[in-house]
Amino acid sequence: MSGLRITVWNEGVHEKISEKVQKVYPNSIGGQIAQYLEKQPGIASVRSVQLDDPDQGLSDEILENTDVMTWWGHLAHDKVSEENAEKVQNRVLNGMGLVVLHSGHMSKPFRRLMGTGCMLKWREWQSEGERERVWVVDPAHPIANGIPEYIELERSEMYGEHFDIPQPDQLVFVSWYQGGEVFRSGCCWHRGLGKVFYFSPGHETLPIYYNEHILKVIYNGVLWCAPTKPVNGVFRGNFDPPIEKIG
Amino acid sequence: MSGLRITVWNEGVHEKISEKVQKVYPNSIGGQIAQYLEKQPGIASVRSVQLDDPDQGLSDEILENTDVMTWWGHLAHDKVSEENAEKVQNRVLNGMGLVVLHSGHMSKPFRRLMGTGCMLKWREWQSEGERERVWVVDPAHPIANGIPEYIELERSEMYGEHFDIPQPDQLVFVSWYQGGEVFRSGCCWHRGLGKVFYFSPGHETLPIYYNEHILKVIYNGVLWCAPTKPVNGVFRGNFDPPIEKIG
Amino acid sequence: MSGLRITVWNEGVHEKISEKVQKVYPNSIGGQIAQYLEKQPGIASVRSVQLDDPDQGLSDEILENTDVMTWWGHLAHDKVSEENAEKVQNRVLNGMGLVVLHSGHMSKPFRRLMGTGCMLKWREWQSEGERERVWVVDPAHPIANGIPEYIELERSEMYGEHFDIPQPDQLVFVSWYQGGEVFRSGCCWHRGLGKVFYFSPGHETLPIYYNEHILKVIYNGVLWCAPTKPVNGVFRGNFDPPIEKIG
Amino acid sequence: MSGLRITVWNEGVHEKISEKVQKVYPNSIGGQIAQYLEKQPGIASVRSVQLDDPDQGLSDEILENTDVMTWWGHLAHDKVSEENAEKVQNRVLNGMGLVVLHSGHMSKPFRRLMGTGCMLKWREWQSEGERERVWVVDPAHPIANGIPEYIELERSEMYGEHFDIPQPDQLVFVSWYQGGEVFRSGCCWHRGLGKVFYFSPGHETLPIYYNEHILKVIYNGVLWCAPTKPVNGVFRGNFDPPIEKIG
Repeated sequence: MSGLRITVWNEGVHEKISEKVQKVYPNSIGGQIAQYLEKQPGIASVRSVQLDDPDQGLSDEILENTDVMTWWGHLAHDKVSEENAEKVQNRVLNGMGLVVLHSGHMSKPFRRLMGTGCMLKWREWQSEGERERVWVVDPAHPIANGIPEYIELERSEMYGEHFDIPQPDQLVFVSWYQGGEVFRSGCCWHRGLGKVFYFSPGHETLPIYYNEHILKVIYNGVLWCAPTKPVNGVFRGNFDPPIEKIG
Repeated sequence: MSGLRITVWNEGVHEKISEKVQKVYPNSIGGQIAQYLEKQPGIASVRSVQLDDPDQGLSDEILENTDVMTWWGHLAHDKVSEENAEKVQNRVLNGMGLVVLHSGHMSKPFRRLMGTGCMLKWREWQSEGERERVWVVDPAHPIANGIPEYIELERSEMYGEHFDIPQPDQLVFVSWYQGGEVFRSGCCWHRGLGKVFYFSPGHETLPIYYNEHILKVIYNGVLWCAPTKPVNGVFRGNFDPPIEKIG
Repeated sequence: MSGLRITVWNEGVHEKISEKVQKVYPNSIGGQIAQYLEKQPGIASVRSVQLDDPDQGLSDEILENTDVMTWWGHLAHDKVSEENAEKVQNRVLNGMGLVVLHSGHMSKPFRRLMGTGCMLKWREWQSEGERERVWVVDPAHPIANGIPEYIELERSEMYGEHFDIPQPDQLVFVSWYQGGEVFRSGCCWHRGLGKVFYFSPGHETLPIYYNEHILKVIYNGVLWCAPTKPVNGVFRGNFDPPIEKIG
Repeated sequence: MSGLRITVWNEGVHEKISEKVQKVYPNSIGGQIAQYLEKQPGIASVRSVQLDDPDQGLSDEILENTDVMTWWGHLAHDKVSEENAEKVQNRVLNGMGLVVLHSGHMSKPFRRLMGTGCMLKWREWQSEGERERVWVVDPAHPIANGIPEYIELERSEMYGEHFDIPQPDQLVFVSWYQGGEVFRSGCCWHRGLGKVFYFSPGHETLPIYYNEHILKVIYNGVLWCAPTKPVNGVFRGNFDPPIEKIG
């Protein structure tokens, strides 16, 4: 493999209307993630796109040249067209990896791929957040590689159970919150030929995407999501005549 | 529990246009399944509905009074309205069980709940079918209760891998076909507050729904899908103030 | 089914040497659980046994007449003979349900069935315990039936991740602790023809087994563990000649 | 990572007593596998060991310097000492990958790690074997990378369900046999800090380990089993005082 082609999809709405968000992420949330990823080994290229780009940043050209996409959005999920959401879904089913971050749990591509409501409990706690600890529950998983027993986030938005997702194929992280809740914060699924990793930390007004461990988890997630290449694809449809002689 | 309220949803199209299907299922496919289920213990009532019923057999009144729905369709998946498909999906997420049979793998409610393409290989083999053996791979599962090591079907339609579904939470049956294929033929998933069981045997021109073991699996699937009743539901949304005192 | 035959296995050591334990469980921990279970619907009989019974309460006669066994122990895991531990393991593989409670995570039968170390973090917090919240993460699971969103335990012993178990087939509960940890507190596995449910709450010096929700979970676990009955067992060994004619 | 250190453990008994086996594997089964692996990218070293080596090829020195071990045995499982079997189990729980091949399903380390009987149906079919097709059921899995839809083996020993293993965390391959059976032939588990991959093809009198796709699967399995490195290990034991202030 000569390196992964990454597309960082960022809604890019809140950054434009809130000084608070701008102060924390002057380069936008997507920009901060892209800047980190492009320096990591095994990454061939990182392209940043936004909702207000042509084709909402989801043109065929972009999708066909993306190995793994990361997704961040929260104010404008509804603005993503059904057609584009379906294109992302189909691209995952055909092999693209998808790393869904934080409030992306309510994005159209993620909800389509899960088949459930994907809703959860949440609390901003007077916009100041509270303590979160992201505990590793599957230390053998490659996404936990190089991560300490728990990642401590001094201020975070609470996300709580019940989180309406299908049972993860693999559950890597479970979060603890100061206010009394737990959350399955790192979840893996295979879907078709592709893979999906959801990772919950990351509020827009908190500097969580500067935390080295959080960034490392996102990078590990990108690597885990890398497409596999079946030798001659997967055929589906009328499979006649049979392989064996029937007599 | 005073007994489950079952709704047997049957497309009911092929029976009307094909003498061959009529001959095998004079009482319709749905009718044959309903007739069996209504005699089983723990079943309070069985209602049969069809695509050409008012509201496509999927009115709010019906859905709200159904504990478990069985679904059979193959010619007219596209005729089911998006609105009705979404209603079935939401009813499952709110606790209704769904038993999807045979070609129902391409039905809208199933595909929405899975999030994948749900396509597979298939072969009618000169419309005469071939031998299938449905092997139990999880004998501890309640759906395998009272089932022999394998169910032999002298003539069946082949369904083959790759079957484009999410990894089942529990895989109960794997089928062998004379022509050289295998298939994950009995699959379980939890979705929201509800459960989904997919079971593949059952072609419209073959008398598979008269096989006592096949019927027993469908009944076991219905029992497994029975809704649970959380004491005070599940809350999702803004969960402020926190349970614990902060700061 | 004419009702389940339950055996409550209780180590019964701490009750004899500690006044503190006696005060909380004058009837022994096993006695308290047995007393509750025998009043529940679907339970045919409840037998209480202890480590100092003949055959350590694990005679062939007892094992062969037990549908579901509950297991509590913590001081004397090593006293259970390897032979008896293997008998319990084999009985589970042949269909018996096993509900393992609290410190039973280090019992020989559980460790043999898991294949892992089964160790965890723990803290008694000056013998007074701390607040635990047992959150439902799979509300569709029958073990969550009739349970509120979370069970609050004012004083509990902390059990924390990493819990060295195989990934549960189904994860039903995750616990939150006041001191900052999380724990996969309700876990389900199929093993051979049998089922295992582990449920962590329940320290010997805290009145947790009087909590109505905790008792309901144990009862639900017993029902979930009920043996299934394959029609003609499962054959393993030399399977010659083949079912199909070859060549 | 500077490359994986592989140890190929081969029972090495049948090769010595059977001309038939010698003819197929003149270099021993382990030798054939080692010869292939040592040419693959990402492999730093391959060491071949056998049952009749000092310490049965399982000395502390060897285990501590092995990232992934492959295991082949079938005549002399009982000759492996309990102590050595336990050492291999513990080394897996501490991070070593284990690729178990064919009749290794009855080896002591595998059975300890699974916790089940690991027995299955089998048939040599007049010592000549029969046709097997190894179907990919999870094309997104890295172990399926570069593998066609199915691997055809003209002559193979049948292994059939029920295979008495825990539900795989991920099921990658399911086999079809000419004689009428199916088998979960490629199975993945996490255990502690380590990973286990079981792959069934490979009889001692059939040249299956010369098949390029079979070898590729073994190599993919080795890569998948590679240890992860948590930053500061995993602590288990008394975790007092709590992280958070209580009271």
